[in-house]
Amino acid sequence: MSKNLEKKSLKIQLAQINFVVGDIQGNFEKIIKEYEVANLQNCDLVVFSEMAICGYPCEDLWLKEHFIKKCQEKILEIATKTKDKNCAILFGAPIYETEKNKKVLRNSAILIENGEVKNVINKKTLPSYGVFDENRYFRPSAYISNIEFRNFDVVILICEDLWDERNLFLLGEQVFDFIISINASPFEKNKNQQRSIIAQKYSQTLKKPLIYVNQIGGQDSLVFDGASFVLDNQGSTALQMANFIEDSAQISIDKKSKIEIISHHQKTFGFVDDNIEKNYQASVLGLRDYVRKNNFHKIILGMSGGIDSALVATIAVDALGSENVELYALPTKFNAQSSLDDAKLCAKNLQVALKIIEIEEIFQTNLKILKTHETISSLAQENLQSRIRGNILMAISNSKNALLMSTGNKSEMACGYATLYGDMNGAFNPIKDFYKTEIYQLANFRNQNLCKISDFKNINLIPQNIIDKAPSAELRFDQKDSDSLPDYNELDKILYALIEEQKSIDETINLGFEAEVVKKVAKLVSVSEYKRKQAVLGVKISQLSFDKDRRYPITNKFIF
Amino acid sequence: MSKNLEKKSLKIQLAQINFVVGDIQGNFEKIIKEYEVANLQNCDLVVFSEMAICGYPCEDLWLKEHFIKKCQEKILEIATKTKDKNCAILFGAPIYETEKNKKVLRNSAILIENGEVKNVINKKTLPSYGVFDENRYFRPSAYISNIEFRNFDVVILICEDLWDERNLFLLGEQVFDFIISINASPFEKNKNQQRSIIAQKYSQTLKKPLIYVNQIGGQDSLVFDGASFVLDNQGSTALQMANFIEDSAQISIDKKSKIEIISHHQKTFGFVDDNIEKNYQASVLGLRDYVRKNNFHKIILGMSGGIDSALVATIAVDALGSENVELYALPTKFNAQSSLDDAKLCAKNLQVALKIIEIEEIFQTNLKILKTHETISSLAQENLQSRIRGNILMAISNSKNALLMSTGNKSEMACGYATLYGDMNGAFNPIKDFYKTEIYQLANFRNQNLCKISDFKNINLIPQNIIDKAPSAELRFDQKDSDSLPDYNELDKILYALIEEQKSIDETINLGFEAEVVKKVAKLVSVSEYKRKQAVLGVKISQLSFDKDRRYPITNKFIF
Repeated sequence: MSKNLEKKSLKIQLAQINFVVGDIQGNFEKIIKEYEVANLQNCDLVVFSEMAICGYPCEDLWLKEHFIKKCQEKILEIATKTKDKNCAILFGAPIYETEKNKKVLRNSAILIENGEVKNVINKKTLPSYGVFDENRYFRPSAYISNIEFRNFDVVILICEDLWDERNLFLLGEQVFDFIISINASPFEKNKNQQRSIIAQKYSQTLKKPLIYVNQIGGQDSLVFDGASFVLDNQGSTALQMANFIEDSAQISIDKKSKIEIISHHQKTFGFVDDNIEKNYQASVLGLRDYVRKNNFHKIILGMSGGIDSALVATIAVDALGSENVELYALPTKFNAQSSLDDAKLCAKNLQVALKIIEIEEIFQTNLKILKTHETISSLAQENLQSRIRGNILMAISNSKNALLMSTGNKSEMACGYATLYGDMNGAFNPIKDFYKTEIYQLANFRNQNLCKISDFKNINLIPQNIIDKAPSAELRFDQKDSDSLPDYNELDKILYALIEEQKSIDETINLGFEAEVVKKVAKLVSVSEYKRKQAVLGVKISQLSFDKDRRYPITNKFIF
Repeated sequence: MSKNLEKKSLKIQLAQINFVVGDIQGNFEKIIKEYEVANLQNCDLVVFSEMAICGYPCEDLWLKEHFIKKCQEKILEIATKTKDKNCAILFGAPIYETEKNKKVLRNSAILIENGEVKNVINKKTLPSYGVFDENRYFRPSAYISNIEFRNFDVVILICEDLWDERNLFLLGEQVFDFIISINASPFEKNKNQQRSIIAQKYSQTLKKPLIYVNQIGGQDSLVFDGASFVLDNQGSTALQMANFIEDSAQISIDKKSKIEIISHHQKTFGFVDDNIEKNYQASVLGLRDYVRKNNFHKIILGMSGGIDSALVATIAVDALGSENVELYALPTKFNAQSSLDDAKLCAKNLQVALKIIEIEEIFQTNLKILKTHETISSLAQENLQSRIRGNILMAISNSKNALLMSTGNKSEMACGYATLYGDMNGAFNPIKDFYKTEIYQLANFRNQNLCKISDFKNINLIPQNIIDKAPSAELRFDQKDSDSLPDYNELDKILYALIEEQKSIDETINLGFEAEVVKKVAKLVSVSEYKRKQAVLGVKISQLSFDKDRRYPITNKFIF
C-alpha cells in the first residue's frame, strides 16, 4: 500500500443505479457488477448512493432485526469480493451500533477496501419532514466524519447532511481534500436547482470539490431522478450525469483539486433540463418502475375521451409500450359520441385497440333494483355509473392480471371531485400530483416532443379536440366541470395557495380571489380528506403531494 | 398572594375531557366550563391533558402558522377568564418559541394564573415511533422543567417525558414536591398496565406523588381511554378515574405528600379492568366519535349472516343506538338461506329492521356484458359479487348521508382476504384490528355482558349459530374460509409472530408451525400491502395496528 500513501490523484467511478427496496440480493448483484467494471478499469473507488444495499426508503422494514442482519451479511459478502483487488467501494447501508449500552440503528456509508470494512460513517442530520421519517428508524451521529483514503482526506456526507448548513459551518474548521455526498434524494419540481445551490455553497465556501451521487428509479410514490454531478473547487459543474436513467462516469481528482472526466456512459443521453419535460419523465419512470418492480407487465385503463385519461394512456405507452397497455371505453347514454370518437382516435395514435363495453344496461339494472327499496339521489346515481365502470375494469384487471390505472388529477383529488370505489379505483395514478392546468401543459409538451426514456417514437398522440373541449365527467346530460367547480385557471391558483403555500382562507382571499369561492374550495378540500386517505398512490411531482408528504386527520374541525 | 406563599396544601381538579382535533373554539369552551366549576369549588389548579386547546394528534395542521396563532389567541383568551380568580389552569398547547434566531414549535404545558401566562413548560422527549411523529413538528426542550406554584415545587412532564427513563434519572437530582404528567396517550392492549408500571417507578424511586391526566375520545384510528390516576409517594393508587368516558375529580395534596380525594364524578361508573371488555369499549367509543365528530348520525352496513358483520352491527348499536343503524342483506344464489335467517335474527335482537336486496340479477347482467368482451376468471367473479354489494351500499350511503361500515377483521386484512372496492368499502371499520379469534371472544363477551358506555341494555344479541358455524365468504357454493386459509387458531398465531413480533419466516417456523404454511401466510401478507394502503381506518387495539403504526412500502422484494 506504500504506493497508495504517495498517491497524487484518485480515479473514482460514480454509479447511479436503480436499486429496489428489499431486494438485498439484487442490489448486491448490481453493486458487484459495477464494482467489477470499476476495478477492471483501474479505479481507486466506486461510489454508490445512500442505502444502496436495501433500497430507499425501506420504511418499517428497517425495524426488523433480521432484515438489518441480512443487509450486514451482504456487506461482508461484498467485502470478500474486494480481496486483493485495487478498487475500494463506498455505499450506503443500515448498520447496528452500540450507544450507551443500547443497540441503535445508523444510516451509514460503508467504505470497503481489500476484503475489509475499513470505515463506517454515520449520518448526522436525519430528516423528519416532507416524505422523510428517519427519526423513526435511526440514531444520528454527533459529528461529521472524514476518512483517510490513499493519501486523500475525504469528507463523507449522507444526503440530509448536505442540506443542514450547520454542517457547512463545522466543515469550515476542518482540513480535507474533497467531499463525497451519497444520496437518495427524491425528485420534485425545482429540486435540481435546489441541490445545485446548496452543493455550490459548500464547494465555494470551502473551496473544495464535491462529488454528488444519487440513485434513480421509482419507489411507490417517489421517483429518484439521479442527476448526479461533480463540482470543482469553485462550485462550477465539472460533470453532470443524466436524470431518470441509470448512468455511470469515471473522474480523476488530484491533490490540487483538479478534476478530469475520464468517461461518462450516458453523455449522449444527457441531462433533461426543461421543467415540463422533467415532470413528464418522472411520471413515466414512476409508473414503469411501479409496474415492473411489483412483477406486473400489463396495465389497463378506462378512456373517457377526456384529457386526463388520454394523458395517462400516453404516459402508459411511453412507460411500458403499446403492447402492454389495454384501453376500454365504458359509455352510458350520458357519454357523447364525440367523446368516444376522441378516445378512439387517441387510442389509434397510441397503437392500442380501444375496447368498448356499454354499461347502460348494468346501470339500469342497478337502478331498477335499488329503486324498489330506496330513493336514490342524483349524486348517488352519478357515483353509481362511475362505480359500475370501476367494477368492470377491476373484473378485467383481476382476470388478466393487469394493473388498473387511476386517472384523477391533483385538482380533482384536492376537491374530492372523483368517485371513491369508482374512477378512483386502481393500482397507481401517474398524474395524481398534476393540477388540471399542468395536465394541459404535459399534453401539449408530449404532442410536440418525444419522451427521452421511451421507445415509442411518435408525437401528436392526443387529439386536439381532447385538449380544446370543456372538461366534463359526463355523468349526466350536458354536465361540465365548471357547473360545480370554478374555472381551473382560478381553482388551481386557489388550491396552490391553500395546499402548497399552507395559506389560511383569509390569506388566500387577500391574493385577490373572491371570498365565497375560496371558502367553497377550502371546504371541498377539507371534507374530502377521507377520499384521499383511501386513494391510490401516484407519482410525487410537487413539493407537497397527497401521499407521504401531506398527513392530515380526517376528523378535524379546522378548515384551513 | 401572601396566602399562597404559605399554603400547606393544594386543591387540584383533574379534568379528563374529550377534545376534538382542530376545534379550537369548542375545546376552549370545554376548558372554560371545567375551569368555572373548579374555581367555584375553590380549587387552586385544574389540570387538562396534552394539546387540550387543539386536540391530539393534529398531524400537519401543526405545520400551519395561522393554526398555531389561532391556538395562541385562545390561550390569551383563557388567561382573561382567570383574572382576579383564585384557580389557575394547566393545559397542553403548541407554542412558537425562538431558538438560535429561528422560530421553533414546542409541545408545551401552559400554566395560567390570575390573567397571565405564568409558565410555559416544553416537552423534552418527543416520540417518533409507533403512531407518533412528533419530531416532524416539534423541537424538544433540553431539560425537564419544574414550576413554583403556591409554595409547592411541581415537576411537569408531558406524555413521552414519563416514558423516557433518562428523565427519571435527572429528577433524582432535583428537589420538588410532586409530579404532574399531562398526556394524550392512546389506548392499546395492556397500555394501562404499562402506564401504571412506569408511573409507579417514578413515584417509588423519587418518593413523590404523581398526578396523571389523559384525554379520552376517538380520533380517526386512535382511541384515548382516559384512565387518569393519582399515585401517592409510595406508588400506590390514590385515585383511579374512569376509562372511555369523560371524568373529573378533585384531590388535595399537602407538603407531606398526603393525598385526599375530595370528589370523583364517575366514581360509580368506575374503571373497566377486564381486557376483552376494554377492547370492546374502545371499538364502541372509536366508532361513535368517528361518526359524531365528522358530523354524521346514521350508519349502514351489509349483514352477511357471518360473525364479523354481526359483531360490527352490535358495536354500531352500542355506539349510536338502534335508531341510527340500518342493516342490509344483499344475497346472491351462493348465500345459504340459513345465513339470511341468522342475519335476520341478529338484526331483530338489535331492534333494527334488516332490508334484503337481491343482487343476483345485477351480477348476471354484469357477467353477461363482461363475457361478450372478456374471459372472466372465477376469482374475478367472486370479487365482482363483493363489489356489486359495495356499489349498492355506497349508493344507499350517498342517498341517505349515512356512513357505510366496513367489517373485515385483522386476519383478513393481513392476508388480503377481502375485496378492494367491495367488502372493503366504507368510512370506518371498528373491528379492523381484531384477529378472527378475538372476534369470537368479543361476541361471547357482549352476549354475556352489557357495554358500560352504551344505552342499549340487552344481552344475547348475536345468535349462537353465527358463532358456531364455519366462516365462509359465500362467493361460490359451499365455500369455506378454511379452503384457502389455515384454521384461524393457527393462522392468528402465525400472523401475530410475523406482524406483532416482527419475526422472520424462519423464526416463525421455529415456533412450531409448518414451514409451507408459514411461507404461504407470509407471502399473502406481503402481496396484499396494496390493499391495506387503500383500506378504511379502523380502531387501533393492538400494539401494531395496520393504520399509523405499521408503515410499509408496496414495492418491496423482502417477504418477512
